[in-house]
Amino acid sequence: MSAIKTYIDQNKNRFIEELISLLKLPSVSADKAYQQDVLNTADAVKNYLDKAGCKKVEICETPGNPIVYGEHIIDAGLPTILVYGHYDVQPADPIDLWDSPPFEPIIKKSESHPEGAIYARGACDDKGQMYMHVKAFEIMMSLKTLPCNVKFMIEGEEEIGSESLEWFVKRNQQKLSNDVILISDTGMISNEQPSITTGLRGLSYVEVEVTGPNRDLHSGLYGGAVANPINILTKMIASLHDENNHITIPGFYDKVIEASKEERLEMAKAPFSLEAYKKALDIEDVYGEAGYTTNERNSIRPTLDVNGIWGGYTGEGAKTVIASKAYAKISMRLVPDQDPDEITQLFKNHFESIAPKAVKVKVTPHHGGHAYVTPIDNIGYQAANKAYTETFGVPAIPQRSGGSIPIVALFEKELKSKTILMGFGLDSDAIHSPNEHFGVFNYLKGIETIPLFYTYFTEMYLNQ
Amino acid sequence: MSAIKTYIDQNKNRFIEELISLLKLPSVSADKAYQQDVLNTADAVKNYLDKAGCKKVEICETPGNPIVYGEHIIDAGLPTILVYGHYDVQPADPIDLWDSPPFEPIIKKSESHPEGAIYARGACDDKGQMYMHVKAFEIMMSLKTLPCNVKFMIEGEEEIGSESLEWFVKRNQQKLSNDVILISDTGMISNEQPSITTGLRGLSYVEVEVTGPNRDLHSGLYGGAVANPINILTKMIASLHDENNHITIPGFYDKVIEASKEERLEMAKAPFSLEAYKKALDIEDVYGEAGYTTNERNSIRPTLDVNGIWGGYTGEGAKTVIASKAYAKISMRLVPDQDPDEITQLFKNHFESIAPKAVKVKVTPHHGGHAYVTPIDNIGYQAANKAYTETFGVPAIPQRSGGSIPIVALFEKELKSKTILMGFGLDSDAIHSPNEHFGVFNYLKGIETIPLFYTYFTEMYLNQ
Repeated sequence: MSAIKTYIDQNKNRFIEELISLLKLPSVSADKAYQQDVLNTADAVKNYLDKAGCKKVEICETPGNPIVYGEHIIDAGLPTILVYGHYDVQPADPIDLWDSPPFEPIIKKSESHPEGAIYARGACDDKGQMYMHVKAFEIMMSLKTLPCNVKFMIEGEEEIGSESLEWFVKRNQQKLSNDVILISDTGMISNEQPSITTGLRGLSYVEVEVTGPNRDLHSGLYGGAVANPINILTKMIASLHDENNHITIPGFYDKVIEASKEERLEMAKAPFSLEAYKKALDIEDVYGEAGYTTNERNSIRPTLDVNGIWGGYTGEGAKTVIASKAYAKISMRLVPDQDPDEITQLFKNHFESIAPKAVKVKVTPHHGGHAYVTPIDNIGYQAANKAYTETFGVPAIPQRSGGSIPIVALFEKELKSKTILMGFGLDSDAIHSPNEHFGVFNYLKGIETIPLFYTYFTEMYLNQ
Repeated sequence: MSAIKTYIDQNKNRFIEELISLLKLPSVSADKAYQQDVLNTADAVKNYLDKAGCKKVEICETPGNPIVYGEHIIDAGLPTILVYGHYDVQPADPIDLWDSPPFEPIIKKSESHPEGAIYARGACDDKGQMYMHVKAFEIMMSLKTLPCNVKFMIEGEEEIGSESLEWFVKRNQQKLSNDVILISDTGMISNEQPSITTGLRGLSYVEVEVTGPNRDLHSGLYGGAVANPINILTKMIASLHDENNHITIPGFYDKVIEASKEERLEMAKAPFSLEAYKKALDIEDVYGEAGYTTNERNSIRPTLDVNGIWGGYTGEGAKTVIASKAYAKISMRLVPDQDPDEITQLFKNHFESIAPKAVKVKVTPHHGGHAYVTPIDNIGYQAANKAYTETFGVPAIPQRSGGSIPIVALFEKELKSKTILMGFGLDSDAIHSPNEHFGVFNYLKGIETIPLFYTYFTEMYLNQ
């Protein structure tokens, strides 16, 4: 048994306990009510980095939530790995759909996690995956095998657009200089088949408000004679897709780089069962853009989804009212080379243009980010693949993910370095959903695999 | 000054105080949280009827909220008037749009009520208008001028479909036998121009639930590949109207009796300013079915309005989620001879038929009611018009209202008698909306007009 494995074996209970203590902190960045918990979580991460042996750890103030920064330089001649993660989490609602309280972590076995999984908001996204790096670092320090320099940058606004991180990165290019950026905030195909995410979708997120009459009206006395903002909103949203589920916003697809036939064939090789997919979601059929497969629809194609909608009476029973206002939160996933700001502007112009004179429309941009692709001949990718191959016994499959980590594109622009996305979560881990969890196997496997990446990356870097 | 006027003059402060005490009770029937207040309101109404001198008053239990029944028979040879009203009110939300707490009544002057109006939920709909009848009865008792028999039936489920009332009426035809039914739960054109509602729209109210995946999903990992129930719901709702705002449900218009050219010309005579209408609602334009005027759209034409919609993340900030479920409350206003149960079934069949295989749809009927029309040659109408002419100095204009009082059609079917709708509210009284109010002038004018109806109806009845 390798020294790393032995160390993990002897300390795994503590590793799990420490993660659980982090998961108990409800660091929901989207809701100001949790502001103090967000700050407490930043402090907790700092303390754990100190304990792990990181030389210099600091809490960096920003216009928003603080960033935990750690630095351990052993030799300027050696390469530097910048580890990024986030300590903030998604809101837990709908709270009533959780089988156990989102911030009282428990360990349960599940179909995909026979060895047990930790159930809590943020277990997989991203506290669990972020903390693997802290423990991997502890191991290399204890075993005195750290082969290179390392920097940690753990932020608290990933779930709300990383605005302060952008502010921070632009002001600290020197401090953050590195040779590769390492992130675990994605998933892999299965516990038997690791994969490395080589592509991410971009994001444009907007909130829309439709105003009809200046007050709620009796639907009997006014129904049929005035524009009902909810009816109008449904009409406007519905019109954003055509009968083939193409998005109808003029110019939306102009900059989309179509995937090559070769790439689509390569993608099609990834193991995938449509039946299993439908069964897992309990749906009779999938639904999406004509002419593309399910795996293409959620990775290489842009989308437009309503993430929330509300208006009028939503309480118990019946209220015959015409609301004055109706609202929706709408996000668009983008692919190379769509520009998020440009797409947001196209959406705004189009949405305002299709509103009938009988209503007023307001479009408020939330946040966005560019799509990203990592070339698989990059030594970072090669090192990661070698590490996975050693710990899982099979090489990783390169995968395009439908998710967005806007800051990856930001890093490339500001820090001029590539990002390697070593994700250890599973699609079934229900991130952003009730009952989010992270497999104990995955957590420990990540801690075991990361030090190998350090070793192989340093070797390849020095030999190139 | 007439004896009635003198009596009102001497007692108007008490009349207002008593109404205010009723308005302080939050008898919201749509929300079980207010159940005790609903019961307390029924008791209060009973006590006031007792005090007014009504011989026999009782609280009648039903499967739902109790019905307050009062009876004062002076001579079997004289006609009997059945007064109907309701003591329950609409929910107060959106609570934050009220200028004063909905259940802490205050009196304020307003543009349409220079003499002041009582602001509270239920002030006009229907506690204020219902209580006019109790006070009018008190006056006739005190002045010993009651010319006929009277029965009171005040229910507590009008705002949620009057199910228990239907149960009660079907079981008490004998007890409720009468020669005319008198209701004040509608409006009039203005304080200078009274009107009598001769038509009401029917109602079909349904709640729909669209289910996509069995859990909330990450919109990045699944976006574009699975049916988003909110997007689907908007598509389905939008498809319920065509480009002319005709309703697309097959068979929806089959039984609609088109208004005659003459009737439409008669309606067009009612004073109406589109500019004032738009200004009052702060809208740039009206919106509705092609080929009909605003007054036609909200009275003689059926409609389909979304009264509430919700799904996904509606909190602060951004959450990139695909919801598992989306919901809407939808009401259809009906005209003669549309049958509410048939329309509800047509809606259900159609809505289920247009759902893509990728989602499951559930349609739950809430409640409904038939449309109704009163012929203006009816002696009840004649007596009411004579009473208005005397107290307002001008005859009333017959009007078709867009609202629904489903029980009016029920009364005709079960009790075989016509209903006279003597409404004293104004459209601007904001019933079902924040800041509902009822003019002090209107309240006292109603109390003054009602005894005259009793007198003229009895005369015409005996002379016919």
